[in-house]
Amino acid sequence: MNTSKPLILIDPLPRTVPMCFDAAAKDRLAALGRVVVHETSRMPAAMVEEHLPEVEVLIGQTDMPAERLERANKLRAIINIEGNFLPNIDYATCFRRDIWVLNASPVFAETVAEMALGMMLDLARGISAADRAFREGREVYGLESNKESFLIRGQPVGLIGFGDLGRAFRRLLVPFGCPIKVYDPWLPDLLVRDHDCTPCGLDEVLETSRAIAVFAAVTSDNQAMLGRAQLERIRPGSLFLLMSRAAVVDFEALVDCVADGRFKAATDVFPEEPWPAGHRVRALDGMLLSAHRAGALDEVFKRIGELVLADLALILQGLPPVVCKRAEPETVARLRSMPVQVS
Amino acid sequence: MNTSKPLILIDPLPRTVPMCFDAAAKDRLAALGRVVVHETSRMPAAMVEEHLPEVEVLIGQTDMPAERLERANKLRAIINIEGNFLPNIDYATCFRRDIWVLNASPVFAETVAEMALGMMLDLARGISAADRAFREGREVYGLESNKESFLIRGQPVGLIGFGDLGRAFRRLLVPFGCPIKVYDPWLPDLLVRDHDCTPCGLDEVLETSRAIAVFAAVTSDNQAMLGRAQLERIRPGSLFLLMSRAAVVDFEALVDCVADGRFKAATDVFPEEPWPAGHRVRALDGMLLSAHRAGALDEVFKRIGELVLADLALILQGLPPVVCKRAEPETVARLRSMPVQVS
Amino acid sequence: MNTSKPLILIDPLPRTVPMCFDAAAKDRLAALGRVVVHETSRMPAAMVEEHLPEVEVLIGQTDMPAERLERANKLRAIINIEGNFLPNIDYATCFRRDIWVLNASPVFAETVAEMALGMMLDLARGISAADRAFREGREVYGLESNKESFLIRGQPVGLIGFGDLGRAFRRLLVPFGCPIKVYDPWLPDLLVRDHDCTPCGLDEVLETSRAIAVFAAVTSDNQAMLGRAQLERIRPGSLFLLMSRAAVVDFEALVDCVADGRFKAATDVFPEEPWPAGHRVRALDGMLLSAHRAGALDEVFKRIGELVLADLALILQGLPPVVCKRAEPETVARLRSMPVQVS
Amino acid sequence: MNTSKPLILIDPLPRTVPMCFDAAAKDRLAALGRVVVHETSRMPAAMVEEHLPEVEVLIGQTDMPAERLERANKLRAIINIEGNFLPNIDYATCFRRDIWVLNASPVFAETVAEMALGMMLDLARGISAADRAFREGREVYGLESNKESFLIRGQPVGLIGFGDLGRAFRRLLVPFGCPIKVYDPWLPDLLVRDHDCTPCGLDEVLETSRAIAVFAAVTSDNQAMLGRAQLERIRPGSLFLLMSRAAVVDFEALVDCVADGRFKAATDVFPEEPWPAGHRVRALDGMLLSAHRAGALDEVFKRIGELVLADLALILQGLPPVVCKRAEPETVARLRSMPVQVS
Repeated sequence: MNTSKPLILIDPLPRTVPMCFDAAAKDRLAALGRVVVHETSRMPAAMVEEHLPEVEVLIGQTDMPAERLERANKLRAIINIEGNFLPNIDYATCFRRDIWVLNASPVFAETVAEMALGMMLDLARGISAADRAFREGREVYGLESNKESFLIRGQPVGLIGFGDLGRAFRRLLVPFGCPIKVYDPWLPDLLVRDHDCTPCGLDEVLETSRAIAVFAAVTSDNQAMLGRAQLERIRPGSLFLLMSRAAVVDFEALVDCVADGRFKAATDVFPEEPWPAGHRVRALDGMLLSAHRAGALDEVFKRIGELVLADLALILQGLPPVVCKRAEPETVARLRSMPVQVS
Repeated sequence: MNTSKPLILIDPLPRTVPMCFDAAAKDRLAALGRVVVHETSRMPAAMVEEHLPEVEVLIGQTDMPAERLERANKLRAIINIEGNFLPNIDYATCFRRDIWVLNASPVFAETVAEMALGMMLDLARGISAADRAFREGREVYGLESNKESFLIRGQPVGLIGFGDLGRAFRRLLVPFGCPIKVYDPWLPDLLVRDHDCTPCGLDEVLETSRAIAVFAAVTSDNQAMLGRAQLERIRPGSLFLLMSRAAVVDFEALVDCVADGRFKAATDVFPEEPWPAGHRVRALDGMLLSAHRAGALDEVFKRIGELVLADLALILQGLPPVVCKRAEPETVARLRSMPVQVS
Repeated sequence: MNTSKPLILIDPLPRTVPMCFDAAAKDRLAALGRVVVHETSRMPAAMVEEHLPEVEVLIGQTDMPAERLERANKLRAIINIEGNFLPNIDYATCFRRDIWVLNASPVFAETVAEMALGMMLDLARGISAADRAFREGREVYGLESNKESFLIRGQPVGLIGFGDLGRAFRRLLVPFGCPIKVYDPWLPDLLVRDHDCTPCGLDEVLETSRAIAVFAAVTSDNQAMLGRAQLERIRPGSLFLLMSRAAVVDFEALVDCVADGRFKAATDVFPEEPWPAGHRVRALDGMLLSAHRAGALDEVFKRIGELVLADLALILQGLPPVVCKRAEPETVARLRSMPVQVS
Repeated sequence: MNTSKPLILIDPLPRTVPMCFDAAAKDRLAALGRVVVHETSRMPAAMVEEHLPEVEVLIGQTDMPAERLERANKLRAIINIEGNFLPNIDYATCFRRDIWVLNASPVFAETVAEMALGMMLDLARGISAADRAFREGREVYGLESNKESFLIRGQPVGLIGFGDLGRAFRRLLVPFGCPIKVYDPWLPDLLVRDHDCTPCGLDEVLETSRAIAVFAAVTSDNQAMLGRAQLERIRPGSLFLLMSRAAVVDFEALVDCVADGRFKAATDVFPEEPWPAGHRVRALDGMLLSAHRAGALDEVFKRIGELVLADLALILQGLPPVVCKRAEPETVARLRSMPVQVS
């Protein structure tokens, strides 16, 4: 065994190594260090303890309280191959010791953005509703079928949350020439404007947009921030896309609004998953339903491996990571109050 | 009656003036000339004859054989407010006399492009299929539901037909970073390359694209150009979007390919409309069905009025039209062999 | 001699065949038809007369009055390999007979646009002025040297003339995020808006833009349209770029404005070329001078050949030309009142 | 005095508060905290010492060794209003205590990118050289003047350094359709590809690009990395733009290459500033000279204030900064070996 190569410990549950690393990626991983994997279950404590003194990079969701970190003297990075930061790490110790804590959430930006655009176009043009009607032999041709249809071109769009997901979605919208308003209380106006969007308050986004997309992660601050009162501010005939987490919305109020014909909505997330069999939302005409499908593609999972490899290589060369998401002292406690992974 | 203002004759059937001109547009029309409209039926011959000596612009689908053109000495333009060129005009006379023959087909570019993108994203991500499953209580969550899903980002896309529609679609694809191949036998390679696409033959488009969109108008040359042999060249797992006219495809062969699971398809057009009630395509999982809905939106029809007004104003100022589609001596006979309007 | 191939007559003066067609292009030309060239002088009348009955495409600036056109029964197109339409053609006859009259002006769009952007950035940042100072040992470092400098990012830009050149320039400006106003009396507002620009009157362009670029061809209507009164409307500290023809401006008034320090200017064109040796403009600090250089590049001339070949191939297949500029009945007389080629 | 507001200490030398903060920005600063400024000289030690126990944010270049940091118990951020990280801070202590160390370098991205594009177009088209000739009465018209000119459209471009500056430049190049290769040893290939560029080695960038732009900051690793051997790899007739720091290049070798006519170059930086009066580079035809002018604009300095205010507001709300550049444990020591500010 080449002890000069850094020890990389992989404890991938709930994922597996093959989910994120194809054969070539595994080879590249092996070239970077001595790789120790345990994937039939969470890595047993004894195995973790055995490797703590040597481990330089930990990939996975292993518990890392202060006492373990204390023994992991060579540890340089902990990388979660999901999109969240879990509360089982002593972040303060990591920050103090310049141990990078990273996750792979940026991989979800493009896939969620494409899904959001597909859902927005679906609602704007009645694509799935018209397909359903056609299958049931009640299709309507031409103009009569488009009474509620509109073009996205030039329509005011509102984004709630402007992290990686919101920005990826904005890029896809560029050719549509839509004026875009952004509500994100964690970002300065300057940054929003630098992306050719207009920063504004939540109410203004709700009241002035023809299509609204929610990309905000759940934090300790924003649970159910989109309550009934907020949802009722949305203009009649608008579209509402829920792409991040159901917890930011009063879901039943959302269903009521759609049932009342106030606006149409699409959701990729639900307060409980799987969602109860008989729930009324399953029969609602103005609602487009997706069973948490926006992020969970094989190619996206393989890209997680690519991100991990890229930052791992930098870290082992003594350079800072640049592609994974970094835990920040200020926000990790707020974010980790609830899982935020997209898939 | 102010005889100094030019006479504009409007014979809008199968459309009506209010379909294409809102109140403000009607006012602008009235400001440009003396407007004479007949819209309960095709304009009666006597009425046409009465106005022939004075008419400067004819809007509609009135028969204009040589003998009528001969009497219409002041005629400067014939503008069809649909998207086609009909065979009831003596085009040779019009060309000889510099009478513009125009139609409003460019208005369909943006609306068809947005619909095509929505349909492409639907097939790539299984949006309507997953919604259908959810409604039936058989939804699948996450990765398991995405076995056939893929991102558009970076995928090779093929376009068949690169007129206004194909070019509008290409613009929407720019942020996806897809390499695009184009087959359009009426256009030089140079023009295709100037739009950052690669010109190539039909077979290459079919064989190398992950998503193929058909925007070609039907001409006397290309009926059923996409026969069974051509469709079978399409790569397994690809997407096929039929956005222009069913006549360019062997429709039953297309249905067979989808039924066999070769590729997924979406169609906005059918060989007969309305389409027979019991046809097997209505039950096909890999097919997305749309009842000729891509072009026929109220806002698109109002935009027809805008195009007509814009070119009318130019023509009456002695300038050439620049926004409507012009009939060309070389192609009008080939195009008019069959209606080509998108809506 | 293969009489079945169409006769292509080339009379390229003031250009030559090798200027526009490299070896490969010449081969492609020869493959399209029987090519007869005369390039030591204007093609002699006897030679023209000899070929008139057979010629299908004429490339060059040969006189084509009615009597010659009458004998040229097979003629389908006249293509000028400069960027203008000359008055030595009987256009009415050509239009009546569906003979295309084309020129190669679209090749100048990209090259003039890049030059205009380079000149705009030069004036905005004092690039050539600072280089001049450096060469003379009087350079100023940092902030002190940038008292009149500004970023283009977000600045209001005005375009006068929005044909191929103006549109190419607009495309280059997209990443700068500038709001763009356009004055072009030959185009409808609709078309300008479809390019994400705001149509407006000449005075508004002059009064509200930080940088103004003139791309308007000279016509019988617009000579000296930018007189002293118009130029004095330009905001202090703005930039003025003259890219098309000196005749649209009162050149001495322009020089006065720059001399007075009202605004900075760049010009690629002059009322007389060559320009008088001792003229005061040669010593003016706020003026960037270019001796009609924006269009005349070898690669641009070779691209003329590419455009000609592309449209020639279409025409000989019985299809309409799509890349060269077409003479229009309404405008050719206004344009040809004065040469408008860019190079 | 409202002791509940955080103490913001400003020690702006070599800048001043008014350089970076206009009246409105000063008001916003005052609203965020108690502002204590000293700007006639470096803040005296006694004054620093007095405020250490209370200071929450330090703006400027005050020495902050371990012993001062130890007493600054409330300190949350140190923000340099230049673009560099200086060696007078005990970074290890800052990282351990989660004190943000920031600088304003991102403000230089857009301004340097626009300047680089202006310089690239100048060299490609001979803009300043032709202006110089015109002033000296030796201008050449048209094609003869463009023997070395070329369009940027489609040319291969190489970037050395792909931080904020390189990425801003890439955005401006998008409409030119240039394939772009990037050399940046601190970044993974993945990230470069996500910006639609091709990652590659330094030699490949040099050998295959028609225009090369250097945006790399000087580090302890890359001084004179572009030596004579590297420069001689550049293709004849190419362009070389030095936008970051002279120390990354063997400057005399660069001058030799240009003097020999191998390629043309532009530089905004010099090994010594001011540069010696009689140096041969001042008379070199193929060289465009700029006296460190790319970053130092008043509006750019005002934008420094905007960035500082934006991140300050976040930090004081308990959120992480997002617009200033962060010092990283891995790279700050390498970067601070030499000042890297752009202006």
